[in-house]
Amino acid sequence: MLRYLTGGESHGKCMLTILDGMPSGLRIDKSIIDEELARRMVGYGRGKRMRIESDRVEILSGLRKARTIGSPIAMMIKNIDQSIDRLPVVLEPRPGHADLAGAMKYDLKDIRDCLERASARETVARVGVGAVAKILLSEFGIRVASHVTIIGSVESKARGLGLSQIIAVAERSPVRCADPKASRAMCEAIDRATESGDTLGGVFEVVIKGVPPGLGSYSQWDRRIDADLARAIMSIQAIKGVSFGIGFESARRMGSMVHDEIFYDKAKGFYRKTNNAGGIEGGMTNGEDIIIQAVMKPISTLRKPLASVNIKTKRGVKATVERSDACAVPAAGVIGEAVAAIEIANAMIGKFGGDSIGEMKRNYKGYLAQISKF
Amino acid sequence: MLRYLTGGESHGKCMLTILDGMPSGLRIDKSIIDEELARRMVGYGRGKRMRIESDRVEILSGLRKARTIGSPIAMMIKNIDQSIDRLPVVLEPRPGHADLAGAMKYDLKDIRDCLERASARETVARVGVGAVAKILLSEFGIRVASHVTIIGSVESKARGLGLSQIIAVAERSPVRCADPKASRAMCEAIDRATESGDTLGGVFEVVIKGVPPGLGSYSQWDRRIDADLARAIMSIQAIKGVSFGIGFESARRMGSMVHDEIFYDKAKGFYRKTNNAGGIEGGMTNGEDIIIQAVMKPISTLRKPLASVNIKTKRGVKATVERSDACAVPAAGVIGEAVAAIEIANAMIGKFGGDSIGEMKRNYKGYLAQISKF
Amino acid sequence: MLRYLTGGESHGKCMLTILDGMPSGLRIDKSIIDEELARRMVGYGRGKRMRIESDRVEILSGLRKARTIGSPIAMMIKNIDQSIDRLPVVLEPRPGHADLAGAMKYDLKDIRDCLERASARETVARVGVGAVAKILLSEFGIRVASHVTIIGSVESKARGLGLSQIIAVAERSPVRCADPKASRAMCEAIDRATESGDTLGGVFEVVIKGVPPGLGSYSQWDRRIDADLARAIMSIQAIKGVSFGIGFESARRMGSMVHDEIFYDKAKGFYRKTNNAGGIEGGMTNGEDIIIQAVMKPISTLRKPLASVNIKTKRGVKATVERSDACAVPAAGVIGEAVAAIEIANAMIGKFGGDSIGEMKRNYKGYLAQISKF
Amino acid sequence: MLRYLTGGESHGKCMLTILDGMPSGLRIDKSIIDEELARRMVGYGRGKRMRIESDRVEILSGLRKARTIGSPIAMMIKNIDQSIDRLPVVLEPRPGHADLAGAMKYDLKDIRDCLERASARETVARVGVGAVAKILLSEFGIRVASHVTIIGSVESKARGLGLSQIIAVAERSPVRCADPKASRAMCEAIDRATESGDTLGGVFEVVIKGVPPGLGSYSQWDRRIDADLARAIMSIQAIKGVSFGIGFESARRMGSMVHDEIFYDKAKGFYRKTNNAGGIEGGMTNGEDIIIQAVMKPISTLRKPLASVNIKTKRGVKATVERSDACAVPAAGVIGEAVAAIEIANAMIGKFGGDSIGEMKRNYKGYLAQISKF
Repeated sequence: MLRYLTGGESHGKCMLTILDGMPSGLRIDKSIIDEELARRMVGYGRGKRMRIESDRVEILSGLRKARTIGSPIAMMIKNIDQSIDRLPVVLEPRPGHADLAGAMKYDLKDIRDCLERASARETVARVGVGAVAKILLSEFGIRVASHVTIIGSVESKARGLGLSQIIAVAERSPVRCADPKASRAMCEAIDRATESGDTLGGVFEVVIKGVPPGLGSYSQWDRRIDADLARAIMSIQAIKGVSFGIGFESARRMGSMVHDEIFYDKAKGFYRKTNNAGGIEGGMTNGEDIIIQAVMKPISTLRKPLASVNIKTKRGVKATVERSDACAVPAAGVIGEAVAAIEIANAMIGKFGGDSIGEMKRNYKGYLAQISKF
Repeated sequence: MLRYLTGGESHGKCMLTILDGMPSGLRIDKSIIDEELARRMVGYGRGKRMRIESDRVEILSGLRKARTIGSPIAMMIKNIDQSIDRLPVVLEPRPGHADLAGAMKYDLKDIRDCLERASARETVARVGVGAVAKILLSEFGIRVASHVTIIGSVESKARGLGLSQIIAVAERSPVRCADPKASRAMCEAIDRATESGDTLGGVFEVVIKGVPPGLGSYSQWDRRIDADLARAIMSIQAIKGVSFGIGFESARRMGSMVHDEIFYDKAKGFYRKTNNAGGIEGGMTNGEDIIIQAVMKPISTLRKPLASVNIKTKRGVKATVERSDACAVPAAGVIGEAVAAIEIANAMIGKFGGDSIGEMKRNYKGYLAQISKF
Repeated sequence: MLRYLTGGESHGKCMLTILDGMPSGLRIDKSIIDEELARRMVGYGRGKRMRIESDRVEILSGLRKARTIGSPIAMMIKNIDQSIDRLPVVLEPRPGHADLAGAMKYDLKDIRDCLERASARETVARVGVGAVAKILLSEFGIRVASHVTIIGSVESKARGLGLSQIIAVAERSPVRCADPKASRAMCEAIDRATESGDTLGGVFEVVIKGVPPGLGSYSQWDRRIDADLARAIMSIQAIKGVSFGIGFESARRMGSMVHDEIFYDKAKGFYRKTNNAGGIEGGMTNGEDIIIQAVMKPISTLRKPLASVNIKTKRGVKATVERSDACAVPAAGVIGEAVAAIEIANAMIGKFGGDSIGEMKRNYKGYLAQISKF
Repeated sequence: MLRYLTGGESHGKCMLTILDGMPSGLRIDKSIIDEELARRMVGYGRGKRMRIESDRVEILSGLRKARTIGSPIAMMIKNIDQSIDRLPVVLEPRPGHADLAGAMKYDLKDIRDCLERASARETVARVGVGAVAKILLSEFGIRVASHVTIIGSVESKARGLGLSQIIAVAERSPVRCADPKASRAMCEAIDRATESGDTLGGVFEVVIKGVPPGLGSYSQWDRRIDADLARAIMSIQAIKGVSFGIGFESARRMGSMVHDEIFYDKAKGFYRKTNNAGGIEGGMTNGEDIIIQAVMKPISTLRKPLASVNIKTKRGVKATVERSDACAVPAAGVIGEAVAAIEIANAMIGKFGGDSIGEMKRNYKGYLAQISKF
């Protein structure tokens, strides 16, 4: 079982995480983690803060001579601005944020006590964990990518892409969109939002290639892999919806146009010609690409602020402005990759054992041989 | 903490569940559970099997003189058809079902060994648990309802409804839709699907009223209430997407049109005029109604069967037909209510303690008083 | 991961359990489970109730044609006396029982609401689960046995026994003691206790043979196998202490007389000549027999009752007498076997995967080959 | 729910932990944590390493202006010697350590990859967590202490002590023993062991005062507080047994001499004149002091080394000497306090809610009032 906890506040000393349960013998290249942290910071529409930040991971435990040894892996990403104790009191909860409910729940008289942890800055730790999960998955030929399909009113025509196409096109787009024309229109939409002091949300798609059939289970409600993936994706700040395959479109199609027919070929084994299910049937991976969509609401901090109430005076005010990105959807896709990779890594370890990478691979190969003869 | 496991196969002796963690002193009226089981069976478009089934719960443990005593509550719902050991071998996996991946995973040579547990019949146990959760929630004035918003190409005009409206209209509709005109069109669409041997999916909305602010937490990724709700909903058989509030629509709106502004009134305290967030901000309930949408794919078993492969001969075939409902969305809404109620009950017990209903209420009132003075 | 919940009250309809996570393809012989249930009822010093009880398991789910299919296994053991709702009110808490603290915690005005679930009758469900765990373990050549080493002032001379010796002698002893002379003295001690209306406790030892090295882990505090075993054993009603190997004796010996030196032989691989560690080093199995001791306090219900207080009148009374066994240590050993078997089965599934028995065995063999070349 | 993970290797950069689930509003005095870390290092019989180490906690997250805010609390204790990557290869497993089983399990060719994490140095992080737990408990008048009762052949006459007596005497003893005469004899025994290159184990007792009745539950096997405490204590490196109250002595006494009779007094409420149960009945606290014993085996690294085998050459050798303390029982008591405090804190948060210290106290007082009227 792979477990992790994160700690850290937005303007505290650092963000950090302890990841328990990785097999031994896995080579961890710190630069791969840093690269993922860098991918998390990109995206047209990010404000100044992002540009000055340059996150670097420090691995505090779990490696010896750059290899895992079965110990928990602790990672720290230092914050540049560590002024948490000196920052001014916040009394005006921002609509769309944890501010009001969080201050009530934890009985906090200064909303800053809440917003420091609720901040999406926390995701940097999860991207670190996700990077390690991706390194593990790459040993099994499993790769994870993402691209942006919607920002505001602009929709990408490039849907249901293969992984290599995404990497070829989306990774070079300033909005991580695989449709160059839509990409430009998205940038323009972001410019317009920035000008008007407004913000934009959107949809991203995560694609996972190379997953074997049989991760997850229908056997108990809380062992379904789609349920675990949905929880992980929904746990990302500002995500308001998640779906698989053709997602909400499956409401509108007849059954005969939805289910992926099954074929067999001596060389490939069982296969499908369509993947409307997004790689998941009966709460299990079916061997096809896993395809996940997630919708991110627009950033809750607008330059043109919304109505709020001073929690001390109870007088109506305009909500505090904390930062000024206009759109964070491209970065959200990177975070989506991370949390999805963690869930798949966990399922792989659950099914194939996780003491050493050699043992895990041996067990994996045994299973592949088993199902090839199925 | 509220925990439960379910057991049982579609044609086994029974479906059953053990629910651990309910407070003592709660009166459980068995007829309320039976009523929920009955609600799960209704809906235009269900085949014969549903009509002959008449599920009744038998409470095997956890009550004394019809009250909870802090012990685990075990519930059994007997199956009428208990022929599991005698039913014929299945060799043709049905597209859209657990069949192929499940048989590979568990190394089953007879697909029936898989489909018996993967069947949505399992949800009857969850509806039982959900009914108990609802009884608990009703002690705190929390109510859970649902209505169908889309079936096939027909969309209800009645969205974002209050609970009482849903109950007044949707509960009387044969498709559990709160828009009478759409309701009729949905029935017609189901008729057409039935005639052509096809099936239909759709979208339902769960509404939860009376939830206090502060359930869930932004503090750790796996403590967010929306993440827990998403997991629970996605764990229902055939669900392919889940969203909150305006859901995927939030991708398309400007931030200023999304976030729910905060107001204050001496009598009501803090309140909102909109509820685009669906009652959840920062991974916590914010005191507004929780609004969840979920999309259900069309039933995977069509009378006009899909291409499949005999797992023994490897020859192409038409997939086995197991049952013949044309649409299960109305029932899925009832199941959605159940699993959402369980998550909210769990969060309530987590926040307010769960040893006795008296203690839980006392703690709850203390919190309400605390936040009313916030 | 192997999980289970139990439900049921002492005079309710039944005791039952749902066990989640067993691999598919395992043949379950119901008579083996019944045999374990019968072993739980034996023992010199049990009162009338035990003799009239004759527990039989009914398997409600999880099997098809007597084999596991990867589904949760639900088991029910019916109670003969189901009079829970009609039994008289209890107002006098029994010292040594859950009665007083339980009634306070759950705010119960009738102590019967507490004692019905707190009763050791609950262990019948755990013995059922343990029997299934033992069947799984037997596929890997792992066997679990127990014998009684102390009852009252009588101590067995037969300690640190091999499994076959235990089975040969202890299983035939009326007190499950492997030393025939001590066995007779124990019976006499029980007779004397019975005569004086008193009760006796004792110590039993669980021995597990054939466990591979490397179950459990030092990597995180809650993954140590000795910690898990200690929790499981201590969770048995009336157990007040648990230890491994030479246990509390290790306080008194010099280090050079405690640690098991390591030797190597081409045929056997690494081995030890002593097993003071009881098969566990660094929170892991080391390949030697696991040896666990547990102490059970005397049964809390005496015929010569202890001072108590009527919870309604607050007047001093003599505690209610509920049943009259004089000694339950022999049965406790059987329960100890069960919960230990469950923990080892869980660790085996965690390390070797648990989807099908074929996969699990293949992975296990791969590991054995790996460590034989270590 | 209180959760924590630790990370760190003995000669890595640091030991660290993330603690999730502490209520907000709790003042954390860093010096109290440092004091506990210092207590962990004391004790007659510790070698040089302990004396040069001077552990100081750095709190990396979870506090603002020295108060908890509901965020995870991350703590780091730096290692002075961080040479993990440069330390020489270890090929000779030490009997009594994780070395052999750990290297096999994780397929490590250099035993150092195993011993670095398996080291009891890890407990420094747990003592940090325990210190925070103690601060929380002190808000409820709950205090935790420990004293050493046995080292080698020397036994303290001071057993079953009250907390204040322990603090008055044991805290000043070089071996943390509350019997001054035994204390001297223990030091002498340690001197003799040191001279002969041998080591000593012993027994310590943890006492927890002020715990309300009703923590833990008999309702489900894994919710018993004694089971949780046993797991926590047994998870400490080198612990081989754990018991409550009169512990293994309860095997030898008649029932009438074991169970703590119940009395009532208008002022005190229900009370006991004895505490043989060690404060726990039916898996719950009963309001009396919790009394736990644990046995620690002698340190596994002797200057007069034991027989072992070179894992590469397979030739018999004398086991590697890594460090040279003669006795660590006094420090183990401090660690025992820490892990017990964490379990009690967790149970308190589970029963009384854990969002803010104010809420938790309000709920606690409500419960005290409830049971005072019981």
